[in-house]
Amino acid sequence: MPLPWRHLTSMIVRLNGSSLLVDCGEGTQIALRKKGWSFKPIDVICFTHFHGDHIGGLPGLLLTMGNAERTEPLTMIGPPGLARVVNSLRVIAPELPFEIRYIEIEEPEQEFQLNGYRLRAFKVNHRVTCYGYSLMLDRIGRFDVERAKSAGIPLKLWNPLQKGNTMTDPDTGKVYTPDMVLGAERKGLKVTYVTDTRPTASIRNNAKDSDLFICEGMYGELDKYANAREHRHMMIQEAAQIAKEADVKEMWLTHYSPSLVHPEEFLKEAKQIYPNTVLGKDGLSTELDFEDE
Amino acid sequence: MPLPWRHLTSMIVRLNGSSLLVDCGEGTQIALRKKGWSFKPIDVICFTHFHGDHIGGLPGLLLTMGNAERTEPLTMIGPPGLARVVNSLRVIAPELPFEIRYIEIEEPEQEFQLNGYRLRAFKVNHRVTCYGYSLMLDRIGRFDVERAKSAGIPLKLWNPLQKGNTMTDPDTGKVYTPDMVLGAERKGLKVTYVTDTRPTASIRNNAKDSDLFICEGMYGELDKYANAREHRHMMIQEAAQIAKEADVKEMWLTHYSPSLVHPEEFLKEAKQIYPNTVLGKDGLSTELDFEDE
Repeated sequence: MPLPWRHLTSMIVRLNGSSLLVDCGEGTQIALRKKGWSFKPIDVICFTHFHGDHIGGLPGLLLTMGNAERTEPLTMIGPPGLARVVNSLRVIAPELPFEIRYIEIEEPEQEFQLNGYRLRAFKVNHRVTCYGYSLMLDRIGRFDVERAKSAGIPLKLWNPLQKGNTMTDPDTGKVYTPDMVLGAERKGLKVTYVTDTRPTASIRNNAKDSDLFICEGMYGELDKYANAREHRHMMIQEAAQIAKEADVKEMWLTHYSPSLVHPEEFLKEAKQIYPNTVLGKDGLSTELDFEDE
Repeated sequence: MPLPWRHLTSMIVRLNGSSLLVDCGEGTQIALRKKGWSFKPIDVICFTHFHGDHIGGLPGLLLTMGNAERTEPLTMIGPPGLARVVNSLRVIAPELPFEIRYIEIEEPEQEFQLNGYRLRAFKVNHRVTCYGYSLMLDRIGRFDVERAKSAGIPLKLWNPLQKGNTMTDPDTGKVYTPDMVLGAERKGLKVTYVTDTRPTASIRNNAKDSDLFICEGMYGELDKYANAREHRHMMIQEAAQIAKEADVKEMWLTHYSPSLVHPEEFLKEAKQIYPNTVLGKDGLSTELDFEDE
C-alpha cells in the first residue's frame, strides 16, 4: 500500500522521445510530476498484473492525459484480461480523446518490437498471472570503412547501410546488405523489471546481463520467509541471489512491504550476496548509455 | 488533477469514534496517512459525484481497509449509479472481508440519520448529477434542575431524561418526557461541503449558519469566468458571496484548478466579500466544539 514517502512501485523508461511506463499504482502520476517529467511521451503502458497496487492509478493518469488533449494512440500490454480490467476501471474515465490499443500477452514468453526497442515479457510466479519485462535496445556493429572500400560499395550507399538498411545501387542494380560494411553487433542496453513473484528460472534467464535489474525485495527478516512463499513474493536475499546468477550490472530493490520500515538494515546482507545492490526509493533514476567503443 | 503538493479534494469528519469521508480521489489514503489518522473508524463514505478526481482513490482505500482485516460493514452514499460505479472499480478489489452497504440518493434533498449525526445531501449544479453535504450534530437543551424538582421527577430518571430518553417510572407507571426537564434546544454544529457546481439556492439554503463551509473555488482570474460557467465550476468570488449570504462562521476554499497556481493572490478579494475566508491546503484541519452555554 502507498505510504506518505513511499509511492507504489512503477518504472518509466524514457528513450528517444518515447516513454514506456510499467505498472501504474495509485499516485504514479503524482510521482511522475515530482520528477518534473511529462505524460505526453508515454506511448506504451505495461502491466505486470492487475492487483490494485499496480494499476489503481491508471484511470487518473488516463484522465490527466485526456485533459492535456492527447490524441496519439496509447498502447497497453499486459496479461490476458487487460482490456476487460481497463474498461471496467474506465467507468470513471469513459471519454478519452485518444485510442487505446490493447495487447494481451498470450505466450509464457513473448517479444514485441516497439518504437526502436525490443520488449520481452516473461511469465513469473505470483498468485495471479504476472509478467516481468525486459527492455532491450540493440546496437548495430561499427561501420568498417576499409571493408566498404575494398568491396567497392558506392559512397552514396554508405550512410543508409550504416543505419542497417539493405540498399540497391540504382545505377548497377547490385544489392548491398549491412553485414557487408558493419562489424559484429555491439553491446546494447537492457533493463529488466520484475515484481510480485517468487524467484523463477524465467527471471534468471531474462535478467541475464541486464545493465539494470529492478526487482522486488518485499521482506528482509528471515521470519517473513514463510509469508513471502505464501503470498508469492521475494525476499531481498533472493533478489540478490538472482542478480548474482544473472550477472547483471546493477540491481535496484523495490516493492518493500509496509512492514519493512528500514530496508537499509538488510543492504549489507544483500551486498554480501550481490555487491551492486541499490535500495530503491521514490524518484530514483539513472541514465544508461551505450559503452564507448 | 493531483499535483505533488496539492492532493485532490476530500474531507474527513471524525466524531465520537466514527469517521465520515466525503470524496476519495487518487491519493486520499496517502493524505490521510500523512495526517496520521486511521482508516479503521471510517464507517461512511459519501460521494459528491463520480468524476475520477472524486472517486479514483476508492479501490486503493478499500484494499487497504481489507488488508487491515476490517470486518465492520461500510456505508456508501452517493448519486444514483453508486453501486454500479463502485462495483466496476472493484474489478481490482473484488474480494473484501467486509460488506458494503449502498445508499443511492433519490431526492433533490435527502436527510440521513447516522451514528449520532444528521447528514443532509442536496443537489447542486454540475455537468453530472452532483450533491453537496451538510453534517449536523444537534445539541439538546440544558437540564433544568429546578423544573425537574418542582415536577417531582424521581432522581433515578434525571440522567436518562437528560440524555433525551422518554422514561417510565417502574414504581408508579408514570411517563416522563425529556421536554419536562430540558430547556430549549441549544446550537449544535454544522459542517457543509460543496464542490463541483455553479452557485445554487440549494447551497445557500443548506450552508445557512454552518460553523464550517468548505466550498470549491476553482478559479480566481475573472477571465476564467466563462470557463467556470461552461464546466459548471465556481469562482473564488462566487464562493465568498455564498458564504456571506449563508452567514457561515468560516469558509475554506478548495478544489483549485491546476491553472490557479497562487490562490493566495485572490484571498484579499475574497475577504472583501466574505471576511472569514480561509485558503484550503493539504491536511488543513480544525476542531469544532459546542459553544459554552
